[in-house]
Amino acid sequence: MTERYTKGLNKLNELDSNAAEGLINSFKDICPDLAKYTIEYPFGDVLQRDGLDFKTRELATIAALTAMGNCQPQLNGHINGALNIGCTPKEITEVILQMSVYAGFPAALNGMNVAKEVFLSRDIISE
Amino acid sequence: MTERYTKGLNKLNELDSNAAEGLINSFKDICPDLAKYTIEYPFGDVLQRDGLDFKTRELATIAALTAMGNCQPQLNGHINGALNIGCTPKEITEVILQMSVYAGFPAALNGMNVAKEVFLSRDIISE
Amino acid sequence: MTERYTKGLNKLNELDSNAAEGLINSFKDICPDLAKYTIEYPFGDVLQRDGLDFKTRELATIAALTAMGNCQPQLNGHINGALNIGCTPKEITEVILQMSVYAGFPAALNGMNVAKEVFLSRDIISE
Amino acid sequence: MTERYTKGLNKLNELDSNAAEGLINSFKDICPDLAKYTIEYPFGDVLQRDGLDFKTRELATIAALTAMGNCQPQLNGHINGALNIGCTPKEITEVILQMSVYAGFPAALNGMNVAKEVFLSRDIISE
Amino acid sequence: MTERYTKGLNKLNELDSNAAEGLINSFKDICPDLAKYTIEYPFGDVLQRDGLDFKTRELATIAALTAMGNCQPQLNGHINGALNIGCTPKEITEVILQMSVYAGFPAALNGMNVAKEVFLSRDIISE
Amino acid sequence: MTERYTKGLNKLNELDSNAAEGLINSFKDICPDLAKYTIEYPFGDVLQRDGLDFKTRELATIAALTAMGNCQPQLNGHINGALNIGCTPKEITEVILQMSVYAGFPAALNGMNVAKEVFLSRDIISE
Repeated sequence: MTERYTKGLNKLNELDSNAAEGLINSFKDICPDLAKYTIEYPFGDVLQRDGLDFKTRELATIAALTAMGNCQPQLNGHINGALNIGCTPKEITEVILQMSVYAGFPAALNGMNVAKEVFLSRDIISE
Repeated sequence: MTERYTKGLNKLNELDSNAAEGLINSFKDICPDLAKYTIEYPFGDVLQRDGLDFKTRELATIAALTAMGNCQPQLNGHINGALNIGCTPKEITEVILQMSVYAGFPAALNGMNVAKEVFLSRDIISE
Repeated sequence: MTERYTKGLNKLNELDSNAAEGLINSFKDICPDLAKYTIEYPFGDVLQRDGLDFKTRELATIAALTAMGNCQPQLNGHINGALNIGCTPKEITEVILQMSVYAGFPAALNGMNVAKEVFLSRDIISE
Repeated sequence: MTERYTKGLNKLNELDSNAAEGLINSFKDICPDLAKYTIEYPFGDVLQRDGLDFKTRELATIAALTAMGNCQPQLNGHINGALNIGCTPKEITEVILQMSVYAGFPAALNGMNVAKEVFLSRDIISE
Repeated sequence: MTERYTKGLNKLNELDSNAAEGLINSFKDICPDLAKYTIEYPFGDVLQRDGLDFKTRELATIAALTAMGNCQPQLNGHINGALNIGCTPKEITEVILQMSVYAGFPAALNGMNVAKEVFLSRDIISE
Repeated sequence: MTERYTKGLNKLNELDSNAAEGLINSFKDICPDLAKYTIEYPFGDVLQRDGLDFKTRELATIAALTAMGNCQPQLNGHINGALNIGCTPKEITEVILQMSVYAGFPAALNGMNVAKEVFLSRDIISE
């Protein structure tokens, strides 16, 4: 376990205390290094950096994943993570809504549906 | 001129005092309503909203445009705009660097090259 | 309710008489303005315009959504809508097939599967 | 020369009488079969088909290429081609403008700039 | 049945002996020519070519589909096909892992999950 | 200088003996860590791995970059690199041609034009 790995594990657990274990288990029989690299580079290198606070980093990630429109599981994870580190539901929905401008209405509608699932699962909104 | 248009014009001019005039002139002979709608919806509706400050909105836009990788003129405009409203060069480069995780290294490298052009043109860095 | 909103609501209901209500209810607790903006800008501004008939506009939308390949719910909605305003099943499948040229065979195959679901649900084809 | 090739060549020349020769020459030393396949499949198979008129096919292509946002040379070619077979400038700009809804404003703005180059080169608009 | 069709059918059946029948049946009522063209152009023209062996071609396809991130059914099919023609599970997971560099970690994670489904269904790995 | 960095530097120099220096100089005033990370993760981690030879890895990268269609500078670099490590021009053009199937003809045509520039600059083909 490198220092990058240990720091990455801690960072990922800040976002979601079950995420690292899930990631490691998910790929342990097929490609354990994909989990290792995901912990080391994104969480051990990039998200450790100064110059931009963690909440803004998560909102930037939510913006990108909504705009790209083809990574719904990761968008779900980062919306949960953003809430866990103190982003407000309103900040998250504002970022997603804003993507209607840059990536079109379908991307924003599909992103908002992911947020809706997350918010329902956390009783932020109710059916 | 609707109120949305007037408010959008002011918002766009906050980002870049020449942008609205450039946009209007650019499309006046081919499709003036594209300029009008761009002023009204993104700037008159979305960027007027509460719940997320203007600087974070610009960083979210820079994240999305870097990740999408096919809108370099708009990325250039929003990096300039972000600097004009008080985002630091460091915040901008951190967002672009972070996109290596979510959209790959080519997207981040190409986005950073756009930032480099902008920073050179503003003497933030020198050749 | 602005005039744009009212006109947009009518236009959206031309495509699908249940769509507006579904859209409004879906986002009423999380971000009602996303529904409002979707009614106002796409349906109240853009699809109101002269210069291109509604059927050709829907075929252009089906082309774009098939090519982008990451907005299957909206593609489903617009295939239904296109049929509701008088596009023929053949026109729709021709547009989707044509996308094999511009966006590749996977995009066309996945788009055609969305059309197949819609056509089955409307008894245009049978299992 | 297969029949598909001959029919494709004629179809491509309807769009632009210089396009086939340019395509063939461009790739003759590196990969002549890419030109051959481009003539055979898109133009010899797909654009030969019944069920959708040629003008609507070109508008669907312009929609897709604008939305994808990463094929400006082909967008330029198809805007020219669309004009050559009788699409009006207005129909073309309406399709491009509409893409602001489905693929975002940057895609529409960049697509309109391609149309502007084409229209200037044909004196449809002037500087 | 053209020669291209017959050769394409054989090639597709090398990848997966049930694929051609499934493809033909799937679209026989909605657009049989999409199945025909898929057999003729990709399998009857492109994958017949010299200059690159079939296994490398499949790995290139897995790279592209993982990076594009919006064609999971085709990625599933080509991972199965690659295994059927002798690519090793390791070669496949290495290609997918490598896409983290070029298309980002979400694309690689989602691609690896498709490989995991395929490997589980073939008892290459177990739950 | 970590061991990952040193190994990455050597790997990158195998592809192109000027690339590392160019990369480092290009970003030294704006974001030196983007160059550092590009050397460490793609070249120091991923391209060091067993299980897939370097030439097949480069062909997979060329496939992905051609299909994505928005990273022409990186595609140029990897076509040069692939030639430097012994891929044949034919293998490269076959991969690019194949992308017409998975990402559409515009992506393949634009990718082939990048290959053409590279091949002209190396006198593999002549004007």
